[in-house]
Amino acid sequence: MAELKLVPRSEFERVRMADAPRDDRLELLGDMARANALTAVKRAGSGHLGSSFSAMDIVVHLFEEELTTAQVGWDHPDRDVYFSSKGHDVPGLYAVLHSFGVIPTERLLRLRRLDGLDGHPDVGVPGIEANSGSLGMGISKGRGMAWAKQFLGRGGRVVVMVGDGELQEGQNWEALQAGAHQPMGNLIVVVDRNELQSDKRTEEIVALGALEEKLHRFGWYVDACDGHSHDELREVFEDFRAEPERPKILVAHTIKGKGVSFMEHPFALEEGGGTYRWHAGAPDDDAFERAFAELTERISERLAAHDLGTLELEDVPSLEPESPVSLEGEPASGAGAPRPRLKASAEYVAEAYGDALLDLAGSYPELVVLDADLASDCRIRGFELRYPDRFIEVGIAEQDMVSVAAGLARQGLLPVVNSFAAFLASRANEQIYNAAGEGARIVYGMHYAGLIPAGPGKSHQSLRDASLLGALPNVAVVHPANAEETRAVVEWAVEVAAESVAIRLAIGPSPRRIELPDGYRLASGRGTVLVAGADAVVLSYGPVMLHEALTAAGGLRTRGIQLAVVDMPWLNRFDAAWLEETIAPFEHVFVVEDHSPVGALGDALRRELQRPVTVYGVEGWPACGTPTEALRFHRLDGASLADRIVAVLR
Amino acid sequence: MAELKLVPRSEFERVRMADAPRDDRLELLGDMARANALTAVKRAGSGHLGSSFSAMDIVVHLFEEELTTAQVGWDHPDRDVYFSSKGHDVPGLYAVLHSFGVIPTERLLRLRRLDGLDGHPDVGVPGIEANSGSLGMGISKGRGMAWAKQFLGRGGRVVVMVGDGELQEGQNWEALQAGAHQPMGNLIVVVDRNELQSDKRTEEIVALGALEEKLHRFGWYVDACDGHSHDELREVFEDFRAEPERPKILVAHTIKGKGVSFMEHPFALEEGGGTYRWHAGAPDDDAFERAFAELTERISERLAAHDLGTLELEDVPSLEPESPVSLEGEPASGAGAPRPRLKASAEYVAEAYGDALLDLAGSYPELVVLDADLASDCRIRGFELRYPDRFIEVGIAEQDMVSVAAGLARQGLLPVVNSFAAFLASRANEQIYNAAGEGARIVYGMHYAGLIPAGPGKSHQSLRDASLLGALPNVAVVHPANAEETRAVVEWAVEVAAESVAIRLAIGPSPRRIELPDGYRLASGRGTVLVAGADAVVLSYGPVMLHEALTAAGGLRTRGIQLAVVDMPWLNRFDAAWLEETIAPFEHVFVVEDHSPVGALGDALRRELQRPVTVYGVEGWPACGTPTEALRFHRLDGASLADRIVAVLR
Repeated sequence: MAELKLVPRSEFERVRMADAPRDDRLELLGDMARANALTAVKRAGSGHLGSSFSAMDIVVHLFEEELTTAQVGWDHPDRDVYFSSKGHDVPGLYAVLHSFGVIPTERLLRLRRLDGLDGHPDVGVPGIEANSGSLGMGISKGRGMAWAKQFLGRGGRVVVMVGDGELQEGQNWEALQAGAHQPMGNLIVVVDRNELQSDKRTEEIVALGALEEKLHRFGWYVDACDGHSHDELREVFEDFRAEPERPKILVAHTIKGKGVSFMEHPFALEEGGGTYRWHAGAPDDDAFERAFAELTERISERLAAHDLGTLELEDVPSLEPESPVSLEGEPASGAGAPRPRLKASAEYVAEAYGDALLDLAGSYPELVVLDADLASDCRIRGFELRYPDRFIEVGIAEQDMVSVAAGLARQGLLPVVNSFAAFLASRANEQIYNAAGEGARIVYGMHYAGLIPAGPGKSHQSLRDASLLGALPNVAVVHPANAEETRAVVEWAVEVAAESVAIRLAIGPSPRRIELPDGYRLASGRGTVLVAGADAVVLSYGPVMLHEALTAAGGLRTRGIQLAVVDMPWLNRFDAAWLEETIAPFEHVFVVEDHSPVGALGDALRRELQRPVTVYGVEGWPACGTPTEALRFHRLDGASLADRIVAVLR
Repeated sequence: MAELKLVPRSEFERVRMADAPRDDRLELLGDMARANALTAVKRAGSGHLGSSFSAMDIVVHLFEEELTTAQVGWDHPDRDVYFSSKGHDVPGLYAVLHSFGVIPTERLLRLRRLDGLDGHPDVGVPGIEANSGSLGMGISKGRGMAWAKQFLGRGGRVVVMVGDGELQEGQNWEALQAGAHQPMGNLIVVVDRNELQSDKRTEEIVALGALEEKLHRFGWYVDACDGHSHDELREVFEDFRAEPERPKILVAHTIKGKGVSFMEHPFALEEGGGTYRWHAGAPDDDAFERAFAELTERISERLAAHDLGTLELEDVPSLEPESPVSLEGEPASGAGAPRPRLKASAEYVAEAYGDALLDLAGSYPELVVLDADLASDCRIRGFELRYPDRFIEVGIAEQDMVSVAAGLARQGLLPVVNSFAAFLASRANEQIYNAAGEGARIVYGMHYAGLIPAGPGKSHQSLRDASLLGALPNVAVVHPANAEETRAVVEWAVEVAAESVAIRLAIGPSPRRIELPDGYRLASGRGTVLVAGADAVVLSYGPVMLHEALTAAGGLRTRGIQLAVVDMPWLNRFDAAWLEETIAPFEHVFVVEDHSPVGALGDALRRELQRPVTVYGVEGWPACGTPTEALRFHRLDGASLADRIVAVLR
């Protein structure tokens, strides 16, 4: 890995105190924080630079000049509160908090690691005022904070950053309507109008149109400016002070990737052939080095121009990831770009999903694919390119997507809906219920299901989705083990199923290719014995947890215990005869879940078998960290599972 | 009950064919349909007249003059599609469908009855194109239908009615943004701008402001007119035809309650002292008779004016409800107004909830109550009046409400969030997850939990809410048995609990007052034995199901079976010692759920006890009908439960 360096906190202090024009200092501080965000993301192996950089000058401006937070104290009740609703720009915020000493250096270097800094904001981290990362909640939450401050007679304002793509989420407009109705003068919203969402132009995905006019019509006091000009920002906040009674919104026109020439929009979009590559994911060594050099050179030049000496950098140990690289896959947007596959199994079940849809499209002209701005991650970009007339992009609006799908289904089409499971099953839950109530047949592609990758944190990890769909009478929840089974499940969902089917899919590369026996065929409600064993049986699903279950079985074999391992992709459908024949004979039945132990396979199996089942799932909040860290933390890695099973059997 | 009469279908046909000016005929048809909607609602004992009447002239205009549906056939693929997103105006639509012979008379007279007409639209009913009743999904769904029609080369337009208050739901704005981005010329939205929501003015709850300007800024082709003037409506639809490429929206200015003078806004609002009384619920006999007389007299006058003879009416048997009146309580808005209490137990647990909040408010100045336009139903109107500065109205926007509460909690307040369980737990699920992830302590008042009342239908009945919250690590789900326990639960949630608490509450009157033993005290995770018995134990919760469980126990006693009945308000929290002592000794453990058998007490108990538990919950989709019909349909009435338990014990 490239050699990593950090701008130490002392350098920020030096610049703050320097005898140089104010805006030059602010610009310097912005670039220094950019350099540190870059290093932190590079070291983490994932994170969102494009949006961290577009928002950076605003964040620096706020904390250096506008907000009282640093002066009155980060826990003071009268402090100004700042948080970002989009949340994925948090590496930039971490770098700024580090520059104030709120986050220590060792923690900045543990971005997306256990006991480090969550991949999306979490109030467990100093200086973080709100959990976010799931889009659209920030203006509402900011209203609550601002209301409370007024009610409690507390000083300080609340400043909420939102993304422009994020404004596709309907909750924003609920909040904007209510915000104008119950005006709070201590609330300020800043739109980071960088004009790009995950990898395309906002105006291409779902246009915001005349945004300032819209916001004005919604009754807010609206200003706009260049979000990289401290002078203009200063003027806007001055202007806002003259409007003490109304909620205020600033549309800050910014440049995604600002500060690193080859990451900047529109250059980067053009270079990427219409796809912006720097939304998420760590740059490779070469790109990192070029970016870091560009930033530090500009910093040095500016320091020199003001006779401020040379830039001191501190070395950073380029810690190798603790976990097997095969598990390090990260989603391309919303969570982190796919990393080079390295030693991975080369199998991505989501690819098999996308390929299967493409293959089925020819025979099933009624098949239509829907996307909520995660087409690359959900592996449906191929479908979009091949069948543009059968691809519907709704933007970041999961509720709209599901109800659109319900409308398509009412006209006899077969919609295939895609998003991350964490968003789809919860944000659009009532819409899924409504569609199911119409008897709609919809395929739900629930991507990024389960614990891994664990770097993005709890806003993105999906450990509740099966429970959220479990009480629907006509939605089968299925989680395939490998590419072959994924294809079989998609075919079953499209060709056979009489009900809706929610397909849980791992988003990263499979830690190993789960081998299915010769002559494997998918059969509704039946699992597949992967390893025979007489002492006990473990049922699991998906490539991540089956890998750990198989590892546990291997370990147990050396300890003289023969653990049968069953791939059970059906989380809420059971073939009674198969259960009776294959599972019932075992005295000990274990389930290893890529889900909370509540509401998934374990519960369903107990309901079906009316017998004790020992369930190992993700207890409590999912850990943020590398896959190995997260699995170990939850005692779901093979070795821990073996120990836990032994403890039960003895 | 008042004598009920119906305008027979033949009278509609006669008017359609009559030699009279077109608009006079349309106005006659509107009033005739109003009379029939009124009779259907009166007979059902609940239903929404105000909104049925405001939308009526538009619905009549559409079906009589504008839509192809009646001509080409109600199942023809090229038909124009009409549906109402708000859905509670469906009695009006049913009356119109009846006038075309799509719904037979005997079915119109089974509004809100088993095998009759659902209280909110359901595609199982002829002529109903979409399920609705849970607000905000219609424009999205209409877009899906319109897209499919274009894709499939089908003729016909899609016309979606939305309420004005409904526009507070954010999903509308998702749909409006995307609808402008991917314009569909075959999509028309009509806003029934009657300016009232459940019982107050929209501009008072959360103002829509310059609605037409907003919609215009969102890129739609906007028209406005008097929604009761056929001439103006005709002009608008003519105008729309000149805009074949763009989606179109009509803001139809209407009068809530139109057609019955004392139900009309603004008169009715003034008469009600600022509260509109005719949003939901059947009128009493006197009001019904006055309304029916006013309508039929006007109809007769108009018939006479055009020499069209006298109005023929057919008698309607004024069927007494099949069910004990004690169960007939209906929510005041969104589902039906509270009926006179008659022989009810006089206990409303929701009242005890509201009273407890009022009593706690003095000692807990951090307690703040939030509402999403269901203040009357949720029994927090008293709190609103007494503590207006601690009451936050967000409008019909459950997601916004929960995130506002999260913001309040971040500032140290204790928010109490209120809505119907069906909406709150699902529509705002991801926001609840996000708040829980911040460790927020929030009290969720989940009103109208469970199967009863069953008249409003599946959009309102809440049989999934416990499952939707079950996998959250720090949210206790509690369902109290009676007023006393409700008060204890609220006190516990406010004073003791270290986590968020979701309180499920029956909305109607308790079928009986569940008697708790002397010296009863609420203890976390522990139930209360209501009836001792040695042969088996049944755990249940809430007044509705405990009543049935007690009835079952009574019936079994006469058959020589001693069934212990335990009130178990804790759906996901257990005191292990209590379980071991009180439940474990029984060979047979039964659970009777006011919920799906998936994801509530039964599952949790099996998880906890690791033993078989027989669970009787609401299987499949909840039945729509009277309480007795619904309970019997699901075999959850006392007699059925007794039979089911006997079958297991033998």
